[in-house]
Amino acid sequence: MILCDIGNTSVDLFMDDKRSKLSVENFDPATFHDDVYYVSVNASLNEHLRGHTNWHDLRAFIEWDKYYPTMGIDRIMVCEAVEDGVIVDAGSAITVDMMRDGSYQGGFIALGLRAAQEAYTRLSPALDMSFNFEVDLAKMAKNTPDALTVGFLAPLIEKIERLGKPLYLTGGDASVLSGFLTEATVDEDLIFKGMKKLIEKGVKC
Amino acid sequence: MILCDIGNTSVDLFMDDKRSKLSVENFDPATFHDDVYYVSVNASLNEHLRGHTNWHDLRAFIEWDKYYPTMGIDRIMVCEAVEDGVIVDAGSAITVDMMRDGSYQGGFIALGLRAAQEAYTRLSPALDMSFNFEVDLAKMAKNTPDALTVGFLAPLIEKIERLGKPLYLTGGDASVLSGFLTEATVDEDLIFKGMKKLIEKGVKC
Repeated sequence: MILCDIGNTSVDLFMDDKRSKLSVENFDPATFHDDVYYVSVNASLNEHLRGHTNWHDLRAFIEWDKYYPTMGIDRIMVCEAVEDGVIVDAGSAITVDMMRDGSYQGGFIALGLRAAQEAYTRLSPALDMSFNFEVDLAKMAKNTPDALTVGFLAPLIEKIERLGKPLYLTGGDASVLSGFLTEATVDEDLIFKGMKKLIEKGVKC
Repeated sequence: MILCDIGNTSVDLFMDDKRSKLSVENFDPATFHDDVYYVSVNASLNEHLRGHTNWHDLRAFIEWDKYYPTMGIDRIMVCEAVEDGVIVDAGSAITVDMMRDGSYQGGFIALGLRAAQEAYTRLSPALDMSFNFEVDLAKMAKNTPDALTVGFLAPLIEKIERLGKPLYLTGGDASVLSGFLTEATVDEDLIFKGMKKLIEKGVKC
């Protein structure tokens, strides 16, 4: 069984407990002969994949009543991986979701680190500075890089901490955030674990 | 005595307890014959103003040891207005600063409402939605507009609330934030109050 997470620029594969990455341009679904279970946000590839009977869209497996119709498919997958806890997926956006007894409690979407940094830069050349990830978020800042880092991260990190435990961190910036959320479990494969659990629950369609 | 706050696109005037606004293009310092005390972030106008002896730059009045060298002049002025408390200036950025016994304790800089909204839109067309200012920030969201609003505002509002009292709100989005910070005092003239206090302390230069 092959698991596949298709984005707009890259395709993440999970085979035999190993991950690999392809660019969308180098990706040809016809080269896969085994069953592939996928989630995709790439509208043009979706069309193409429907012609391949061994490619199975996991959208058909989701109990949509648990979530909401416009919720991102990646968010749903990381939630499916967790029975109880708070899941932070730190990518281009930082999504924060809560599961209790396998039931979705809701969530929220913050800007990703890069998006936030770019938004500060757009406001003023005086704010075109890198975040200082060594900063003490508990202190009020007395220089510009710290003021931006505390301004973006302290409210968000403190909010996440108040949501309760256990806390799971995934996504490209998980390791950066784990420096502030020291009790979190970092799990880069959370999306694939969610996909696997969903498949194991049984084919609904 | 005339007070003047000069930005990059507009000039705010405070005369006889009344405010008025000019665009930078329509602004000619030579038409003012009384003493004018000003703060300015407009580098090209600063040059021009030095030729007018009745125009006094309040930068020269500031005790810079109290603050930090790259701190925005508008932020310093709203801090000067407050002896004790937390000051939130909600403009293109949302600056949050703390004063205790007239001494600056530090602060931080969050994105302004418009900048945050634009940053979400840039991330994905699926996030191109207006904030819902009617949302209950205490609840986890189950639709996209609420997820963005809670994601941006809940961490920030809760952080501000934990900083203590009294709380002062100023800037263009003060009234929007006051819906969430119900115990805050909204004061649109805070910057001019700070300027006035600084002048009354005595000419340092």
